[in-house]
Amino acid sequence: MLPIEVKKMIVSVVGHENFDDSKAGCLVYSYDATPQFQAMPHAVVSPRDTAEIASIVKICSKYKIPLVPRGSGTNLCAGTCPTHGGIVMLFKHMNKILEIDEENLTVTVQPGVITQDLILAVEEKNLFYPPDPSSMKISTIGGNINENSGGLRGLKYGVTRDYVMALEIILPNGDIIRTGGKLAKDVAGYDLTRLFVGSEGTLGIISEATLKLIPMPETKQTMLALYQDLEAAAKSVSKIIAHKIIPATLEFLDQPTLEAVEDFAKVGLPTNVKAVLLIEQDGPPDLVEKHISLIAEICRQNEAVSVQIAQNEVEANALMTARRSALSALARLKPTTILEDATVPRSEIANMVRAINEIAEKYNVNICTFGHAGDGNLHPTCPTDSRNQEEIERV
Amino acid sequence: MLPIEVKKMIVSVVGHENFDDSKAGCLVYSYDATPQFQAMPHAVVSPRDTAEIASIVKICSKYKIPLVPRGSGTNLCAGTCPTHGGIVMLFKHMNKILEIDEENLTVTVQPGVITQDLILAVEEKNLFYPPDPSSMKISTIGGNINENSGGLRGLKYGVTRDYVMALEIILPNGDIIRTGGKLAKDVAGYDLTRLFVGSEGTLGIISEATLKLIPMPETKQTMLALYQDLEAAAKSVSKIIAHKIIPATLEFLDQPTLEAVEDFAKVGLPTNVKAVLLIEQDGPPDLVEKHISLIAEICRQNEAVSVQIAQNEVEANALMTARRSALSALARLKPTTILEDATVPRSEIANMVRAINEIAEKYNVNICTFGHAGDGNLHPTCPTDSRNQEEIERV
Repeated sequence: MLPIEVKKMIVSVVGHENFDDSKAGCLVYSYDATPQFQAMPHAVVSPRDTAEIASIVKICSKYKIPLVPRGSGTNLCAGTCPTHGGIVMLFKHMNKILEIDEENLTVTVQPGVITQDLILAVEEKNLFYPPDPSSMKISTIGGNINENSGGLRGLKYGVTRDYVMALEIILPNGDIIRTGGKLAKDVAGYDLTRLFVGSEGTLGIISEATLKLIPMPETKQTMLALYQDLEAAAKSVSKIIAHKIIPATLEFLDQPTLEAVEDFAKVGLPTNVKAVLLIEQDGPPDLVEKHISLIAEICRQNEAVSVQIAQNEVEANALMTARRSALSALARLKPTTILEDATVPRSEIANMVRAINEIAEKYNVNICTFGHAGDGNLHPTCPTDSRNQEEIERV
Repeated sequence: MLPIEVKKMIVSVVGHENFDDSKAGCLVYSYDATPQFQAMPHAVVSPRDTAEIASIVKICSKYKIPLVPRGSGTNLCAGTCPTHGGIVMLFKHMNKILEIDEENLTVTVQPGVITQDLILAVEEKNLFYPPDPSSMKISTIGGNINENSGGLRGLKYGVTRDYVMALEIILPNGDIIRTGGKLAKDVAGYDLTRLFVGSEGTLGIISEATLKLIPMPETKQTMLALYQDLEAAAKSVSKIIAHKIIPATLEFLDQPTLEAVEDFAKVGLPTNVKAVLLIEQDGPPDLVEKHISLIAEICRQNEAVSVQIAQNEVEANALMTARRSALSALARLKPTTILEDATVPRSEIANMVRAINEIAEKYNVNICTFGHAGDGNLHPTCPTDSRNQEEIERV
């Protein structure tokens, strides 16, 4: 329970309707997408603007009450689990796209904007916001910034960090600061903007962000390369990059993941192969054509048993959406889903896949592996059951 | 003078030949390219490896002696001027390219490597290191990282920050840390790498860096758009970007700068117009062709009196080299060159040019303006004479 005077003060800031310390209300925000982490907050509060956030921060600071800002809670590092109790802060009232500036190619948003809503809004102006975490249908921009989210397009376009130009931040003492600006070049002074990106809310609360946009690529093409040998798939990844081609997307899915995803999404993914690479290139039509045929050739040379090019945008989008659903699909298999998120230099992808399989065998666990192979970033995932203490130990 | 025991300790680390506290030796490193800053260091020291740097840092830390790491001293913010005396540290022994990793598209270097040497070395492998500060013929990578240097290609390719993947750093207490790695995606934890980029040596000494490379663009084209109206030139910049075209280079030079540069470089720059935009696009041939002709059209629509496209690479390189020499050319006009380095949102470029001219008139000073117009980053520059106290006040 919060001290009664603290509750009164916070309610006087946000109003009764934006303060909830009921057991049911708190329970909902006692966990996020991270398995095996749960802790009850003392209250959940939904400020309506920056000034309200600052007031709440000051109160929490004075009374030493932990404060956990939370977007949609899709993170997998317990970044929004109130492990020390205190207050969970929601941004449901702060979900506006404030400005799309077509002259400076920027968008300014409140933290509660859903990633996909932002992407679609700027697409209407023929602009492109590349960071596309798999959870983008529900994740928020504030969460993306605090987690420095990547995505399927990270290989070519980088991660959230690369698109944050300016932030409004409430510091732990309640001071409101602004970092960066709409400047294409901004190199003076310490890079505070990027210090806050990925800081998981530990340095301050982000209340507004200006993000960089780029022109929309003219076109894109999507392909699947099928393998009966995991290492051949991994090796193809290095070979593509060594040919100086940077595809927009270069994803890896192994057979168990393919089976789970196909069962869930039913888009015609092959389930009789050991692994696939899902590859997308975007850009001007000629270049995309050239790259895709070169990539297909490289895959074939590296033991791909088949290469399939999506025939149209519907087919291409279905494949990408299926990939994005991998975690959800795997989560259906067992009550608990332990997802790891490890990155190696991309030249080490084949070694990593081999090591994961050795580990799976050694500990007799089921590991489904998928992820951003082009980035060297794979998600070995164990569908398991946390109630089975013996298995969880092995996992 | 350094305390005698400090001198002894440092000499025992680096050897007599790498320690200089002679007046002549110190005088050379009492200033950098920044006008009106000069201060004598107590000694100049040239470590040969990371361990030696760490030893020196520990000694300086214990005796509270300021330590100023210095590349080639081309910075314009007195970042390497030993304003509090102490020791200037040179990296002439630490100038090796340690590795070019073609599988991971990285290059690992010591801080004393000359920027242009790095660019040429990776070019031989058909790889591209985009940051190209105007001083790249003499500037060092260590200096570029500490200053977060931009360059002529910053508009499309970003600044040094965007290419630093990993650093080895000696902290003020002499501890050696490594940040980042050869990871295409590296998003866990605070972004220490980027905190050090641009910190001007105030947080630690960089002893090694791993930098990101990208595939070499297939081709490039260079053009000049000529204007009799400064604001028309500035307006063209916004219009090009608003057409969703991001050229590799989009530079602005006004008439006084053109005159100085042409007098110095003799490449046939027009000197009878009020301003030019120097524009380069790179990429696949079809796209470059398309963009250059679209840009030419936009420039003409925005009152360019003439548009000239470089007929071959020699001509194109001559134009770019001439632009890079702008500061050197202006520095020949008068004994003192006060260069400002201000960035505005690129939509404000026209307003900035107007304001600069109003200021020049108001204070009766000669301002030559050039710079990275596409980034909104201009260099209003005053050729003046610091011995003329009255004029310097107005400047």
